[in-house]
Amino acid sequence: MERIERHACFGGWQEIHRHRSKAVDGEMRFAIYLPPQAEAQRVPVLYWLSGLTCTEQNFITKAGAQGYAAEQGIAIVTCDTSPRGENVANDAAYDLGQGAGFYVNATVAPWSRHYRMYDYVVDELPALIEQHFPVTHKRAISGHSMGGHGALTIALKNPGRYCSVSAFSPIVAPARVPWGEKAFSTYLGSDRETWRAHDATDLVKTAEEKLLLLIDQGDADEFLSTQLQPELLQAAAAAAGHPLELRMRAGYDHSYYFVASFIGEHLAYHAKALHA
Amino acid sequence: MERIERHACFGGWQEIHRHRSKAVDGEMRFAIYLPPQAEAQRVPVLYWLSGLTCTEQNFITKAGAQGYAAEQGIAIVTCDTSPRGENVANDAAYDLGQGAGFYVNATVAPWSRHYRMYDYVVDELPALIEQHFPVTHKRAISGHSMGGHGALTIALKNPGRYCSVSAFSPIVAPARVPWGEKAFSTYLGSDRETWRAHDATDLVKTAEEKLLLLIDQGDADEFLSTQLQPELLQAAAAAAGHPLELRMRAGYDHSYYFVASFIGEHLAYHAKALHA
Repeated sequence: MERIERHACFGGWQEIHRHRSKAVDGEMRFAIYLPPQAEAQRVPVLYWLSGLTCTEQNFITKAGAQGYAAEQGIAIVTCDTSPRGENVANDAAYDLGQGAGFYVNATVAPWSRHYRMYDYVVDELPALIEQHFPVTHKRAISGHSMGGHGALTIALKNPGRYCSVSAFSPIVAPARVPWGEKAFSTYLGSDRETWRAHDATDLVKTAEEKLLLLIDQGDADEFLSTQLQPELLQAAAAAAGHPLELRMRAGYDHSYYFVASFIGEHLAYHAKALHA
Repeated sequence: MERIERHACFGGWQEIHRHRSKAVDGEMRFAIYLPPQAEAQRVPVLYWLSGLTCTEQNFITKAGAQGYAAEQGIAIVTCDTSPRGENVANDAAYDLGQGAGFYVNATVAPWSRHYRMYDYVVDELPALIEQHFPVTHKRAISGHSMGGHGALTIALKNPGRYCSVSAFSPIVAPARVPWGEKAFSTYLGSDRETWRAHDATDLVKTAEEKLLLLIDQGDADEFLSTQLQPELLQAAAAAAGHPLELRMRAGYDHSYYFVASFIGEHLAYHAKALHA
């Protein structure tokens, strides 16, 4: 593991590291914000999963989260959205291949060789973080768009692993919308039954841990009716008796201006769970 | 004038406009953040000047200023750092030509045709803003690095025009450091006497309005000893009896992580002056 960036930020440190990942069989980069409290004690961690095309940079430069994390005494870890590199399978489209890992373990060649973002996010990255940084084993998870899908599905599939989960503008029903159908048919194959294990609207039906799903969604989001459709998860959660809070935000779009506007509320929510 | 972006942000709107500029004889873009208060009343404006290589985008995506501006009820206007386009003189270096206008009116060809950022920032842009947006005539000015130089020199040269001025990591003595010597010799010519009109350490000697110069500077800034040297302005201000507050910030570098960490304090400072 090698630290490649380090910047003082709101009394703490915004760092970027690279390391050899077993899960994706290649080099990965992640960002970690360590709040000032981490100088004296271990702090809990929020894992942030970004959306299509993003790297570990987008959230840390655009969301304005560090000030709130410094107030709340929580670290934030942000990873890339896929494996990268010349030897990693790719596609010219922005919504497939590098930058579009969809937080699954691909089962179809050539994707299955490196596209194992599920294992990376659930197991390898937290183990690495908890070994090398002054953090506790208390974790929360959140994300935006494709990363919102990642946060919701990973939390639903791993009871006891996260104290809290939230999402901005998530792809809640990937098995039923174009972005998800394209990615899942490519990475998981044509058998739609296998897709259900990565679709929040399916997972919520049988989730054994009733962790509240906190979702913020802009009503002027250009992808709302085609790719996102949060009402599908809302209906599935209601039917299953799974707690969900969907906050529709008038006028907001899909951009990081939306994330920045409400990330403070999400961090306060996660901090409450993480410090409980 | 045409609006080309509009995003809901902290209850207000982050917009980007383009327009034909007389001052630079070409198209210019600017960003304006209108806080929620602007729906009901006119609000004062902070003008932000960015550093080398920046466009109107850097500050609005990276500084996290909108939340503070929404709290304080002030608009923020951010412009590009030079004229742009195929027909505009340029240089391959990052610190000359497009992206490096240095907030002067160039007097040497071919630069003199379009590089008139001083007139643009001082006169044309505020007139445009005050004509088309719900703002008052109360103005503040701030900036980063080359933009900190711009903010300090423009405030010093225009008594009564700004309620307050501040700067992050400013180039305080451009006539005596490599970035400034390169730009001034190119845009203004070899007669160093003409440079003095755009050097804060010279201007402070004779400034008729004793507006406090508020400066934040990271002590781990990679350009501190070569390009910035805030102690030169501190000494000149002390000799002239001009008020200056230089806040050295331990561990901080030249990046937007530094700006983001302290922009809230600057906005609170400007808001106090703007609402007085």
